[in-house]
Amino acid sequence: MDNGSPAEGQSAREQELLDRVVASFDDTPDPRLRQLLQALVRHLHDFVREVRLTEEEWRQAIEFLTEAGRITNDRRQELVLLSDVLGASMQTITVNNPAYAEATEATVFGPFFVEGSPRAELGDDIAGGAPGEPCLVEGSVTDTDGRAVPGARIEVWQADLEGCYDVQYDDGRVAARAHLFSDDQGRFAFRALTPTPYPIPHDGPVGRLLEAAGRSPMRASHLHFMVSADGLRTLVTHIFVKGDELLDSDAVFGVRASLVKEFERTSEGSRVRFDVVLAPAGA
Amino acid sequence: MDNGSPAEGQSAREQELLDRVVASFDDTPDPRLRQLLQALVRHLHDFVREVRLTEEEWRQAIEFLTEAGRITNDRRQELVLLSDVLGASMQTITVNNPAYAEATEATVFGPFFVEGSPRAELGDDIAGGAPGEPCLVEGSVTDTDGRAVPGARIEVWQADLEGCYDVQYDDGRVAARAHLFSDDQGRFAFRALTPTPYPIPHDGPVGRLLEAAGRSPMRASHLHFMVSADGLRTLVTHIFVKGDELLDSDAVFGVRASLVKEFERTSEGSRVRFDVVLAPAGA
Repeated sequence: MDNGSPAEGQSAREQELLDRVVASFDDTPDPRLRQLLQALVRHLHDFVREVRLTEEEWRQAIEFLTEAGRITNDRRQELVLLSDVLGASMQTITVNNPAYAEATEATVFGPFFVEGSPRAELGDDIAGGAPGEPCLVEGSVTDTDGRAVPGARIEVWQADLEGCYDVQYDDGRVAARAHLFSDDQGRFAFRALTPTPYPIPHDGPVGRLLEAAGRSPMRASHLHFMVSADGLRTLVTHIFVKGDELLDSDAVFGVRASLVKEFERTSEGSRVRFDVVLAPAGA
Repeated sequence: MDNGSPAEGQSAREQELLDRVVASFDDTPDPRLRQLLQALVRHLHDFVREVRLTEEEWRQAIEFLTEAGRITNDRRQELVLLSDVLGASMQTITVNNPAYAEATEATVFGPFFVEGSPRAELGDDIAGGAPGEPCLVEGSVTDTDGRAVPGARIEVWQADLEGCYDVQYDDGRVAARAHLFSDDQGRFAFRALTPTPYPIPHDGPVGRLLEAAGRSPMRASHLHFMVSADGLRTLVTHIFVKGDELLDSDAVFGVRASLVKEFERTSEGSRVRFDVVLAPAGA
């Protein structure tokens, strides 16, 4: 069999099958579901046909997904990780958060956000005893017309010096995670940790995939933010550390140049400024 | 956000991300793996961009795959089932088994083949007590030059009247499954069951997908064959029953017109003829 150029009759047989599968979804009552399934089928078949997927490769792909499913539980989501390292998570974020004027860009949410974080007052240390170098974070929240946004809810969370989020600790304690509100001039400040790099979980099939591809499982150092305010688009983002050598090889493709910030050295540790600009809701 | 026509800058942002993800696989040492991963990434991102996948739809897709993984075990393979109902299994078969002269066409392997089936002699009843209407199957094995193929190994397996394969019985007995060899003129004959329709397992996420799409989980009635002989391409196929109303809606898209056979009524049950033509190995 010549894998490179299937004969014309062969191409017609493959197309006929694809058409038949697409047509099988013609009567899907929900038009959006129909659109999604038919597009999925077209792209899936195009992939199989383009690469001339072998039966053994198909079997290996099934085995990979089966193992990813097996390792997934309440604390470990290998399928999200797979989406992350293929850039599908970041592409979904990109599609749903179009650039708007000077609004701050979004990036991946990640698996470590927790509802119900402790409330912090402006200036508080949110590290909660997590190991790491102290970092002072100051900034403001405005809209794209430059107006201050008072009372914006600012959620922050981050990994400690060892690369662990509190939810990965065994003792259930809450650390390096909090929410606070911008003041009447839209300003905020808190103490946290200077971000450090850490690997995504890489002892499963996704880790093996990265290894086979010669890719690193490391994430560039970052601090997570989610900022929300009435009438404005909720922003889920990170700030990254200028000079971090992992900026160009972040395992989940979360880095955007506009989110890379200067972490100034201070006698205590570091200090960074992050001025958040929120797009209008629905923009 | 206007889902229909993202602005030019938006499209460039999405393309830049895609290019970055594709480039991350540039150094994959195995060139075939590199090709597969880069093509997968392109099709996956094209899908997300084309349908403007929402963050909630992404979450639902992850949840669907997570549940498919959870329900999969040694006796239940929901991920294979997913590949089957999206036609990806049949497309892989089609890509790897190009039409060759008058050789018999291939179709899906299915999950019910078992190594080490009992040996049957020509003319034997292979039903092994499985419930169903008797069926006499007669045929021949030739190559595409019309030469008889003596000693071809013919594996056959099928579901019983209740739609169960023996591996789905609780008592471990072997039934409606055997292998035999063509005689010195390439002929074969055995007694089995008239095929009847049955549903693929549909109490999991794939079943719910079919239901949401208004599709039936039923497979058209069929009898499985795998025929192998030295120097010839191994054929994995079914024969289907002419007149079966499920021929046009087989849940896994396995039906090919050339595999639909007349099951003649007899005093005992039915009788069918299946002349197998094997392509050259490597064709």
